[in-house]
Amino acid sequence: MIRQLTIYGVGLIGGSLARALKQAGAVGEVVGYGRSVEPLQKAVELGVIDRYETDIATAVAGSDVVLLGVPVGAMEAVLTELRPHLGADTIITDVGSTKGSVVAAAERVFGSLPPRFIPGHPIAGTEQSGVEASFAELYQNRRVILTPDGQSDIDALEQVRWMWQQAGAEVVDMPVAHHDEVLAATSHLPHMLAFTLVDTLARLEDHDDIFRFAAGGFRDFTRIASSNPQMWHDICLNNREALLKMITRFGEELTCLASAIENGDGETILKTFERAKLARDSYCETNS
Amino acid sequence: MIRQLTIYGVGLIGGSLARALKQAGAVGEVVGYGRSVEPLQKAVELGVIDRYETDIATAVAGSDVVLLGVPVGAMEAVLTELRPHLGADTIITDVGSTKGSVVAAAERVFGSLPPRFIPGHPIAGTEQSGVEASFAELYQNRRVILTPDGQSDIDALEQVRWMWQQAGAEVVDMPVAHHDEVLAATSHLPHMLAFTLVDTLARLEDHDDIFRFAAGGFRDFTRIASSNPQMWHDICLNNREALLKMITRFGEELTCLASAIENGDGETILKTFERAKLARDSYCETNS
Repeated sequence: MIRQLTIYGVGLIGGSLARALKQAGAVGEVVGYGRSVEPLQKAVELGVIDRYETDIATAVAGSDVVLLGVPVGAMEAVLTELRPHLGADTIITDVGSTKGSVVAAAERVFGSLPPRFIPGHPIAGTEQSGVEASFAELYQNRRVILTPDGQSDIDALEQVRWMWQQAGAEVVDMPVAHHDEVLAATSHLPHMLAFTLVDTLARLEDHDDIFRFAAGGFRDFTRIASSNPQMWHDICLNNREALLKMITRFGEELTCLASAIENGDGETILKTFERAKLARDSYCETNS
Repeated sequence: MIRQLTIYGVGLIGGSLARALKQAGAVGEVVGYGRSVEPLQKAVELGVIDRYETDIATAVAGSDVVLLGVPVGAMEAVLTELRPHLGADTIITDVGSTKGSVVAAAERVFGSLPPRFIPGHPIAGTEQSGVEASFAELYQNRRVILTPDGQSDIDALEQVRWMWQQAGAEVVDMPVAHHDEVLAATSHLPHMLAFTLVDTLARLEDHDDIFRFAAGGFRDFTRIASSNPQMWHDICLNNREALLKMITRFGEELTCLASAIENGDGETILKTFERAKLARDSYCETNS
């Protein structure tokens, strides 16, 4: 049981966790804190949090766990603000989509990653954002990755694991660098492709006609291009190396495919599509 | 009313049209023809077609309309087979995803596009294929593009238009080249990206882990990578010029984004994502 949970940044991710923990009876009081008051008021109205504070010291006082639900680009500033007010036993965890940059921010602020700071990342979300979009079932059967290191406090780690399990998630531990590579491949790269595709089409001369004749597949394919631009801006800049590596690999494969099309190399084209279909179908089978 | 409709290639597209026309009472008898007998037997069992023939002359005899539901790569061979058996009044139309190549095939077979051959393309489909996946509602509120030319027979054009309207579609006429450019942008390019993405990930060393941590967005984004490889092989090779142009434009934009990420140019990144989100959100608003 978490007696008091402070959520710094009550949006889709933090809000959904609060709802899930309340529903599971796994939390006493949920306190909200953030840069602007409107979403916090909204969160109280919606019953997502119990109260909000406008002073960081009051917001954190007495909390077992402080959850950072802010964009990864804001992490260093937030940790700096938080540092003087943390109790010796306070557990910190975050939900950032990049982990190397969060650990680096913590190292800049604290000298090293504090043992009771357990970096985390729930592999869940929608293209919506904001507390209004939050719902208790978001983490049901979804995976949460934690990236503790050799210095991590075992009790803190187990408390954070337990918290996410209460929300319905399967929790997996992983080294920071591996997390960032896996996510660059499965999440960050696809978002870059979707944003770039839609922007490419929007910049064509006859873009009205283009979008008018887009079929159903286009809607699904581009759904993630409706994601929060600021959040994805932060992710790009905070997982540069792994993301650039993946963009390069993808670009090389796309160039190969284009060459095959140009040269009428039907065998290469067909083999590429067959491999992709096989991989995608088997992904769906194991994840259905 | 179409008294007799012959469908050459009874799969998802032809099968769904047959179902819709029957439901609307817009067709008398539907005759199936194709290279293999199994899907035709299945189509009769499912009530999608009334009978099938194994002889092309018998299949076409007495039909008002012959619909070609074959991959675009097979179009020339099919038209060659069909040519000796067409009545003077028989209307031909097709459902191919590329139109320039179909017109070129018709020109090779007939000398020029026959006035009663109205090329067509329903902007509808799923990643499924085969008559088992067909359903009568596939064309409800979807667009069908026809690409008649200056020599097209007006009665034939209006008959084909009427047929698709009976299936619930909105029918739009468009020049061949414009069709191929629009579809390269909205359909062919996205399929290339989805196939290439999945294949890129499948070729990574730790591909099991990669797919294991793919989130919900990944499933939607890659749905079209489960499409029929042979059909997409044909589309690639039959819309080379327009598709390569779009791949190049996309590649240039992706390179710009990668440079911005590498250089930490947050402004360019944010503006790109904001433009894309705006375009995608407004596409959804006008197409909801």
